[in-house]
Amino acid sequence: MYSKKIQDMLASLGVEVGDKLRVKSKGDIYEGILMPKAELGDPNTLVIKLSNGYAVGLNFEGAAIERLGGHTEIGFKSREAKMKHVEGKSTISILSTGGTVASRVDYTTGGVYASYNASDLVSTVPELGQFNINSKFLFGIMSEDMTPEHWREIAKGVLKELKSDAEGVVVTHGTDTMHFTTAALSFMLKNLNKPIVLTGSQRSSDRGSSDSFINLLCAAHFASKSDVAEVSLVMHGSPNDDFCYAHRGTKVRKLHTSKRDAFKSVNDDPIAKVFPNGKIELVNKNYRKRSDSEVSLDDKLEEKVALIKVYPGINPEIFDFYLEKKFRGFVIEGTGLGHVPTTIEKDSLIPKIKEATKAGIPVCITSQCIFGRVHEFVYANLRKEFEAGAIFCGDMLPEVAYVKLMHVLAHSKNMEEAKKMMLTNIAGELNERTPVFE
Amino acid sequence: MYSKKIQDMLASLGVEVGDKLRVKSKGDIYEGILMPKAELGDPNTLVIKLSNGYAVGLNFEGAAIERLGGHTEIGFKSREAKMKHVEGKSTISILSTGGTVASRVDYTTGGVYASYNASDLVSTVPELGQFNINSKFLFGIMSEDMTPEHWREIAKGVLKELKSDAEGVVVTHGTDTMHFTTAALSFMLKNLNKPIVLTGSQRSSDRGSSDSFINLLCAAHFASKSDVAEVSLVMHGSPNDDFCYAHRGTKVRKLHTSKRDAFKSVNDDPIAKVFPNGKIELVNKNYRKRSDSEVSLDDKLEEKVALIKVYPGINPEIFDFYLEKKFRGFVIEGTGLGHVPTTIEKDSLIPKIKEATKAGIPVCITSQCIFGRVHEFVYANLRKEFEAGAIFCGDMLPEVAYVKLMHVLAHSKNMEEAKKMMLTNIAGELNERTPVFE
Repeated sequence: MYSKKIQDMLASLGVEVGDKLRVKSKGDIYEGILMPKAELGDPNTLVIKLSNGYAVGLNFEGAAIERLGGHTEIGFKSREAKMKHVEGKSTISILSTGGTVASRVDYTTGGVYASYNASDLVSTVPELGQFNINSKFLFGIMSEDMTPEHWREIAKGVLKELKSDAEGVVVTHGTDTMHFTTAALSFMLKNLNKPIVLTGSQRSSDRGSSDSFINLLCAAHFASKSDVAEVSLVMHGSPNDDFCYAHRGTKVRKLHTSKRDAFKSVNDDPIAKVFPNGKIELVNKNYRKRSDSEVSLDDKLEEKVALIKVYPGINPEIFDFYLEKKFRGFVIEGTGLGHVPTTIEKDSLIPKIKEATKAGIPVCITSQCIFGRVHEFVYANLRKEFEAGAIFCGDMLPEVAYVKLMHVLAHSKNMEEAKKMMLTNIAGELNERTPVFE
Repeated sequence: MYSKKIQDMLASLGVEVGDKLRVKSKGDIYEGILMPKAELGDPNTLVIKLSNGYAVGLNFEGAAIERLGGHTEIGFKSREAKMKHVEGKSTISILSTGGTVASRVDYTTGGVYASYNASDLVSTVPELGQFNINSKFLFGIMSEDMTPEHWREIAKGVLKELKSDAEGVVVTHGTDTMHFTTAALSFMLKNLNKPIVLTGSQRSSDRGSSDSFINLLCAAHFASKSDVAEVSLVMHGSPNDDFCYAHRGTKVRKLHTSKRDAFKSVNDDPIAKVFPNGKIELVNKNYRKRSDSEVSLDDKLEEKVALIKVYPGINPEIFDFYLEKKFRGFVIEGTGLGHVPTTIEKDSLIPKIKEATKAGIPVCITSQCIFGRVHEFVYANLRKEFEAGAIFCGDMLPEVAYVKLMHVLAHSKNMEEAKKMMLTNIAGELNERTPVFE
């Protein structure tokens, strides 16, 4: 809530939340819609949503406020129902799963909680009024709490929307594990015919400087207008609020804890640049196009897969722990080109890799370098790993290989077949071999 | 070995390996020293080391070869002894530990093996002749096989050289885990008075396009001339061969499997740009300067520390495995700002964090985003983690927090004290709190 002082002043001017204002503050003039105040910190800060879709926080002290014509209804009420459609507008579906984009600050603790649903989001971004929107609340969790079970639930929800009149589907999601979910959807949803776009925000939507408005708007444009029938992730493309990137869902990773442009495409170009005004610039010509194909859901996952990052001093017995628990697959984040401790007997992981593969349990190799690809032949130690049965996963991200192995093992009990599936591109996760050295 | 054809031709011209040549190939003219051929692939490729320190492979077919004056002795013989010093030249120590920089290709398999020692390296980089060099072979392993025991051995070797007449110490090392070793040396060597510079290469020194020459030369210049009495890592600063960066040893990570400029400074600027001609441009004004301080070695490490990367679906019982094995500390690579699965009971790591900290076992939080810092208060879930006793490690890299916790736990049995040490900057690993959001 705004401070008593602001509330009194707004009342004296006859100004309500949602009114269009002109605010003169420290010599600068801002025009925009007065937003509800739900921000940590100084309650004397007015939050004004500018016409570029971005909100600013302005110090109330000494500000001159003028009411302009125009009022936008802004509410945080729960409205799950399909909004009334207007002919001529493009229709999109928005599914809400929680995350910062759907969160607001709790005043008592200063912590941020997932609490909005998709229709709340829509009401906070008036620019989304250019679309007919089917909004649906799937669940409301922060993405560190996502599990394979949630991936399946999202995939089911998306499938339903793909079969509706929507041009594309937007899924709002926490950012922490959004790239795991885009990978999971990429493998689970077969024969895609429309865009599926995940988006979120790094700052909650009730903060003046939230990135959620532009991310949501760009995601909506990309879902509505683009020709890209893939699972993509649309988030800020720069620290500024000028554009977003649509990243391929299997080639993207969160690479900064807090920046707006935290997500980067890895080992691939982003698919497109998307601007808040709806302009889409293709960056990558290689993508799946819209079609009339019949989408299907294949959401089986083998959850007994472990992702293991290696490091100097790692205890090889970690493999025994998982083998005793009847795990069915391993993804190793090796060093450099996919190395693991090899030659010193007490530290070597080679016997463990042998033991697992002999038991029919695939061991997939990726790199903790993140960028670049692993390779089974460049070094003598890599050959030893390869000969022990390890499957070198090219330029696949460790996180993506983990999700893919869960998918693959749910479809094959045969290791040779599983290996073949791991090394066959399904959804853009694996690029053809390029020279290791430029 | 060169092809019979090349050997015959060289013999007919009276040319030997080490001679200075002018080679005209496809209209271009190259002048440089004929290097021994030990390259995978076409044996009809002449390897010429240019005056800029870089080697090119030239197709012999149709090339016009002219012998210029000058000969450089090039040998791959083992020469451990201190080379004869020349007055007026700067003295540096070079310690060899193995890695690609000290490797050559095995003709039968095409694999690369660690086999050179430091004096071999010196003899392949004639430009190092401008320094007096004390070279020493510590051991010859690829860096995926490095263990805390090796870090200690390197630290002891470096200490000895710091007490010699050398202006600085270069350590050649495999690249895969070089950033773990720079972190370990940063914590183990106290009161540094001279530069300690780790370097290596992404392509073995016997390949025409190896990056080892420029890396070694820049490392030697930085050790000899710079004022930076820290442990730094000097490697290519761009994909070209124009300069290297000297990265702070606690703020650097290998971020590409194969590129020459695989290493990047993380959450800090590199300390300096270093050019093959010896020019040093400071980038970061914040560094420890040369002095007369008395260096000391503190190489105690608690090796029972685990580094755990979290991901959706991670089995919380992994903590039980380590607790049963009497591990004394954990570093978690959380998602985003340092999250772990929190709210869903069967997946939550919060009870495990509580269990560990109640038993006096520190649980340190870092982020798998790599860039940025973790934070204990922004989200409600982070507060729960904090209240469970987790130690949020600011902008420390997971790999560095792992090494630091080994160091800290060898010096304190008390968790509060250990926490205080983890959150106190020792060697540039932890920057003061900056705003989480820009």
